[in-house]
Amino acid sequence: MEEETLQVFFFSHPLFSIFITLYSLILIYFPNDLLRIFLSPVLLISGALLLSLLRLGSTREPNTQPDKSYEESEEPKVFLVRESDLMGGFVEWNLRAPLEVIHEAYEEEEEEEDPTRFRKMERFPSLSVCYPESDSESDSASSSEFNFPEIGDWNSPENMGFRWEDDEGGIGCEVYSEANPSYSNNGVETKTRKKKVVLLGTGWAGASFLKTLNNSSYEVQVISPRNYFAFTPLLPSVTCGTVEARSVVEPIRNIARKNVEMSFLEAECFKIDPGSKKVYCRSKQGVNSKGKKEFDVDYDYLVIATGAQSNTFNIPGVEENCHFLKEVEDAQRIRSTVIDSFEKASLPGLNEQERKRMLHFVVVGGGPTGVEFASELHDFVNEDLVKLYPKAKNLVQITLLEAADHILTMFDKRITEFAEEKFTRDGIDVKLGSMVVKVNDKEISAKTKAGEVSTIPYGMIVWSTGIGTRPVIKDFMKQIGQGNRRALATDEWLRVEGCDNIYALGDCATINQRKVMEDIAAIFKKADKENSGTLTMKEFHEVMSDICDRYPQVELYLKSKGMHGITDLLKQAQAENGSNKSVELDIEELKSALCQVDSQVKLLPATGQVAAQQGTYLAKCFDRMEVCEKNPEGPIRIRGEGRHRFRPFRYRHLGQFAPLGGEQTAAQLPGDWVSIGHSSQWLWYSVYASKQVSWRTRVLVVSDWMRRFIFGRDSSRI
Amino acid sequence: MEEETLQVFFFSHPLFSIFITLYSLILIYFPNDLLRIFLSPVLLISGALLLSLLRLGSTREPNTQPDKSYEESEEPKVFLVRESDLMGGFVEWNLRAPLEVIHEAYEEEEEEEDPTRFRKMERFPSLSVCYPESDSESDSASSSEFNFPEIGDWNSPENMGFRWEDDEGGIGCEVYSEANPSYSNNGVETKTRKKKVVLLGTGWAGASFLKTLNNSSYEVQVISPRNYFAFTPLLPSVTCGTVEARSVVEPIRNIARKNVEMSFLEAECFKIDPGSKKVYCRSKQGVNSKGKKEFDVDYDYLVIATGAQSNTFNIPGVEENCHFLKEVEDAQRIRSTVIDSFEKASLPGLNEQERKRMLHFVVVGGGPTGVEFASELHDFVNEDLVKLYPKAKNLVQITLLEAADHILTMFDKRITEFAEEKFTRDGIDVKLGSMVVKVNDKEISAKTKAGEVSTIPYGMIVWSTGIGTRPVIKDFMKQIGQGNRRALATDEWLRVEGCDNIYALGDCATINQRKVMEDIAAIFKKADKENSGTLTMKEFHEVMSDICDRYPQVELYLKSKGMHGITDLLKQAQAENGSNKSVELDIEELKSALCQVDSQVKLLPATGQVAAQQGTYLAKCFDRMEVCEKNPEGPIRIRGEGRHRFRPFRYRHLGQFAPLGGEQTAAQLPGDWVSIGHSSQWLWYSVYASKQVSWRTRVLVVSDWMRRFIFGRDSSRI
Ligand SMILES: Cc1cc2nc3c(=O)[nH]c(=O)nc-3n(C[C@H](O)[C@H](O)[C@H](O)COP(=O)(O)OP(=O)(O)OC[C@H]3O[C@@H](n4cnc5c(N)ncnc54)[C@H](O)[C@@H]3O)c2cc1C
Ligand SMILES: Cc1cc2nc3c(=O)[nH]c(=O)nc-3n(C[C@H](O)[C@H](O)[C@H](O)COP(=O)(O)OP(=O)(O)OC[C@H]3O[C@@H](n4cnc5c(N)ncnc54)[C@H](O)[C@@H]3O)c2cc1C
Repeated sequence: MEEETLQVFFFSHPLFSIFITLYSLILIYFPNDLLRIFLSPVLLISGALLLSLLRLGSTREPNTQPDKSYEESEEPKVFLVRESDLMGGFVEWNLRAPLEVIHEAYEEEEEEEDPTRFRKMERFPSLSVCYPESDSESDSASSSEFNFPEIGDWNSPENMGFRWEDDEGGIGCEVYSEANPSYSNNGVETKTRKKKVVLLGTGWAGASFLKTLNNSSYEVQVISPRNYFAFTPLLPSVTCGTVEARSVVEPIRNIARKNVEMSFLEAECFKIDPGSKKVYCRSKQGVNSKGKKEFDVDYDYLVIATGAQSNTFNIPGVEENCHFLKEVEDAQRIRSTVIDSFEKASLPGLNEQERKRMLHFVVVGGGPTGVEFASELHDFVNEDLVKLYPKAKNLVQITLLEAADHILTMFDKRITEFAEEKFTRDGIDVKLGSMVVKVNDKEISAKTKAGEVSTIPYGMIVWSTGIGTRPVIKDFMKQIGQGNRRALATDEWLRVEGCDNIYALGDCATINQRKVMEDIAAIFKKADKENSGTLTMKEFHEVMSDICDRYPQVELYLKSKGMHGITDLLKQAQAENGSNKSVELDIEELKSALCQVDSQVKLLPATGQVAAQQGTYLAKCFDRMEVCEKNPEGPIRIRGEGRHRFRPFRYRHLGQFAPLGGEQTAAQLPGDWVSIGHSSQWLWYSVYASKQVSWRTRVLVVSDWMRRFIFGRDSSRI
Repeated sequence: MEEETLQVFFFSHPLFSIFITLYSLILIYFPNDLLRIFLSPVLLISGALLLSLLRLGSTREPNTQPDKSYEESEEPKVFLVRESDLMGGFVEWNLRAPLEVIHEAYEEEEEEEDPTRFRKMERFPSLSVCYPESDSESDSASSSEFNFPEIGDWNSPENMGFRWEDDEGGIGCEVYSEANPSYSNNGVETKTRKKKVVLLGTGWAGASFLKTLNNSSYEVQVISPRNYFAFTPLLPSVTCGTVEARSVVEPIRNIARKNVEMSFLEAECFKIDPGSKKVYCRSKQGVNSKGKKEFDVDYDYLVIATGAQSNTFNIPGVEENCHFLKEVEDAQRIRSTVIDSFEKASLPGLNEQERKRMLHFVVVGGGPTGVEFASELHDFVNEDLVKLYPKAKNLVQITLLEAADHILTMFDKRITEFAEEKFTRDGIDVKLGSMVVKVNDKEISAKTKAGEVSTIPYGMIVWSTGIGTRPVIKDFMKQIGQGNRRALATDEWLRVEGCDNIYALGDCATINQRKVMEDIAAIFKKADKENSGTLTMKEFHEVMSDICDRYPQVELYLKSKGMHGITDLLKQAQAENGSNKSVELDIEELKSALCQVDSQVKLLPATGQVAAQQGTYLAKCFDRMEVCEKNPEGPIRIRGEGRHRFRPFRYRHLGQFAPLGGEQTAAQLPGDWVSIGHSSQWLWYSVYASKQVSWRTRVLVVSDWMRRFIFGRDSSRI
């Protein structure tokens, strides 16, 4: 799909839409007192200048009138990623929708100041879905899990090794926290004792949890091997120096709110022991007087947000020879390896073939990360490096290997097509249906669908095919009987199934959404207040909103069918069953009405967007734990008495971007809006700038972009 | 000397002088077309705001009327560093006057457009000293060294391994350049053959050579293990994140002028063979088809600018346990080790003593680098880290060990005193007269002057005591009979003594200034045109300016004695000898007049300032090689016929800075001006910003400073 053939629907001039986008984004995201500065004429004029300098071409294609090809394809047009993509063969698990939502905290702070706000929202169900404020209590027998023990009942010793003041006694025993077992009986301590939340990981989930948590009755202990949060969506930009590594990180200590007692330990958790409520950790450096690197930490609540690791699928040679792109250090290493390749190829004593090999960059995996890296690299080479290494120009080759039939399969077809065409035009060799089978230090072998194995010499490989489970999670899953899974199973309130006071979120967990059909009998019974064996429409309507809350698939199903309310569904079912009396409903009719609903249960993609929303959600649950204990906010318990404490977690998809290089980005926004071109690049800039966790990183990222515009990317090998 | 006791001489208000300084610096250094922007009211106002925000206190003390204490001290007030400092015991060789002069190139470009300029300058000897434009021809027998062989005579094969096009033939032999020995007989090649200059090193000397060289008749081959130039004076700022590593580096390929054919090889030279006119190099990565990492490169001219390495003085344990501060990577490593120390000390299982040890930072060496690092670290800890690690506040300790009796011995006494007092006030423990004798992984032992050895536990040591010789230079010196030296000896034209067409500059070389007394007989003979055995004043005056050119110590001596011309000196000598006839001068009288002059021969300090001026000087010699061959510009040959081709290198000291932390800097400017306080900090900012090699680094450095002001330094461990 050529850019020129896309048509402009909304505004006659692209500049107009860009300005509206930019300024409405500024209006939404920037604190009020700065608004005046941003709306000043100086900025407007310089912005206009910059924009016009870039000779904009923009396209936006709303999908309000679906075109023919779209109607032909029978796929339901939901805004969640299709399961088939999620579970699709080789690229399984490699879903990286663009960033989200660490900023939600800001918006909601304001809301909390307005006590009538929540009421208002509940009148508009579609809005209230956006802010799943709360919930608790699984409807299974384990409903006591979430009840806080009285303060007197607490038996986990409160004294932690990381208290600096009184450590002297710790000498001589392995781990300090075991040294003062009687510490918790200290009366003064007991009085002020706070509930101890241990948070593992400082990624998207952990950071947004910390940023939102705002209740001084907790003592938060964060444990992670890295003392900062990294804004992963910009990592591909870091690989080529478009953005500096330091501009995308923020020390985790700056992220937590000041009124929450938070301490951080730079260590890796290697074992979780739910029995003794301890986590065992290891620091990179020798720590105590015995040179021991290991210690343990007690918890009252454990929040697991350790993310996932790169997955090599056990393909031989991948671990040893490929670069991954997961951490900031990976991005830095990739950057210097790219420069190294050019320097290596400039050395004497090589023939052209060898130089070509050294300058052959292979990207494995056609997901957003692989595609973005390939296009960043292409821009880096063509905009900056060929100027300094003119002889390299004709020798550089970028190849993208993808096992599926298309790249960017989680995006709209139009985007996929555009991306493939653009890459072909740019000279990036996209090899579809190529499954890597072996890698050695100089060659990579891939098998086509037909079974042919071809071997290509390479200089550098970046491996970005998907994510796998971290060893500590694998071990923990074995302990709790989830050994055959890929990620920790949690309920809709993010509680790890089968554990007390342990939560898991982000890439290391998946939500096990309860199915309607499993609970259909209980639902019927609950709704049938008169115990008549049939439901009147009135009875049904009374439980309806609770059911929609509890089973989000219902709403998704209605949306996918274009229905406006559950009544439509019931009517349709009754019509199909031939029973047109329509006043009462028996269980069979209810079953047949809802039988298709569970097909809409989706695994959430492993993206920062999901992780951040989960972190925010969980922090709010923690914040309101006591309040909601007294006034539960969740839906009716289907198989118990009363209500759930919190509403279950609900994911709100805000769209995803695929930067394609050359100042062009594809954006897929909720409601199947697709926008490709320079305007979405600007949207991308604005969204990513506004989503930064701190003003420091925001300013740095924006000035990095400006630096790149003016001076290009740096090629010093440091 | 307290800051308050210093008096303001020139301007009544410090703000005034700062503004004048800043804006005159801008006027001097920024290209004209940008002037209007910089003089705009917006900037002036925001500058004024910034400045007043910083509550400036400034002092400037010109030394126009030397005070009593100064007259009492008998030391000569020269602006060159005193030899006693240079050669003073332990800190020998550790002279780091602040930056210089890579920018001179700009200024002189303009001059070259004005052909009368040189003439004009020669009328003002004091000015012409500033721009030692040219010279050549040692007066020894080797005066043919510098004559270019005719093009036909060239016998070094021109084909280099780094030619990309025709390498195929290279397979099968060890090194490509040996593969095509007959290549240079190719007629086409011979016609366009350029003189090949091989430059080793991309530091201050190499970069300023490249930046200035502007003659397309050379083909320049740069060889260095790093593909960028690093602005070393800001390295101490990089260690604490005040400035980012990437802001102080510039790819060397960007530095060379476009009209000079330049290529770069990322490799380390490990052997120089002056016999076969080859250098042997090794790259970090496997290079040719045989996996060989070594290759050789021919040269017509070799410019050695490999600098020096850190010197451990063979003290046991230093190599293994200390951090050095020489390269950008060192600075990055120091930065993450500082953060690591804080994270380590936050871990559980430690007693207070251990935490204190981990947070004990030891700096060895009280030269400008050590002092600047110590104050940067102090600021980093107190301005940024204590906020994030509040418990660490009382545990951090910085200790500075210095073997001499004072820190900053190469600076004016007032600066030394101020620095020592400031450090004491800041809580930095300055241990003077402490010579490190041993280091192990947890403790450092130092011996006081009294011979007592004390052992202190430490968390991290930064070693900055001085510089030593690189192995490749050591090996080369052995080959050419300079085996017992510390640095390559060159003549005043930077030619390595005893070698053909090899130049050395920067930290790896020292100039062997010829002594007047060694040449006194020849000087007399040359001046005595009538061969009368005595010199008339007229005869003497005719050779005087040549002698001043050839022997810079004469001028320094006159200056140090407060004399205005050489006539004063002769008169004094005659008066002392009792021979008052004054018209004629015999050789004994001349000898006694000049006998003290050679005491003014100084070793130049090993600073970037010297290296950069040497690089610029040498490049100009190369540029004007052919012109000056015909019209020599140098002084008369004392023991040969005619004139030297170029004027000898003359160093112009532009002052030095010692940043002391807390936005205070001590500056020692030429003419013994001393300025301490916030105003010199601004001077420091302006000078360092203007001295950057490129606009990119300039913008980055300035925005790094601004970022630091606004957001503080980042403490993420990457
Ligand atoms: C290059 C790249 C680009 C991406 N782009 C996007 C995008 O544009 N949009 C989007 O929505 N998503 C994107 N993602 C995906 C997104 O980064 C992840 O989905 C998200 O980071 C998951 O968050 P998390 O908190 O679960 O895990 P992570 O962010 O991976 O964080 C895990 C944390 O746990 C720590 N940890 C690891 N092991 C242990 C242990 N044993 N003990 C304690 N702590 C541990 C880690 O140090 C880390 O701090 C991208 C990912 C990558 C790699
Ligand atoms: C932390 C610090 C702060 C300083 N501050 C100041 C200051 O404020 N003002 C000032 O005037 N001076 C300062 N200096 C001193 C100044 O940096 C040096 O005097 C200057 O760098 C010397 O320049 P050079 O070109 O001789 O050597 P370097 O700048 O050291 O450059 C040497 C070059 O040679 C390369 N090289 C090394 N070995 C080989 C080999 N075998 N083959 C080929 N290439 C090789 C290196 O990679 C490097 O590129 C400072 C130095 C340091 C370390």
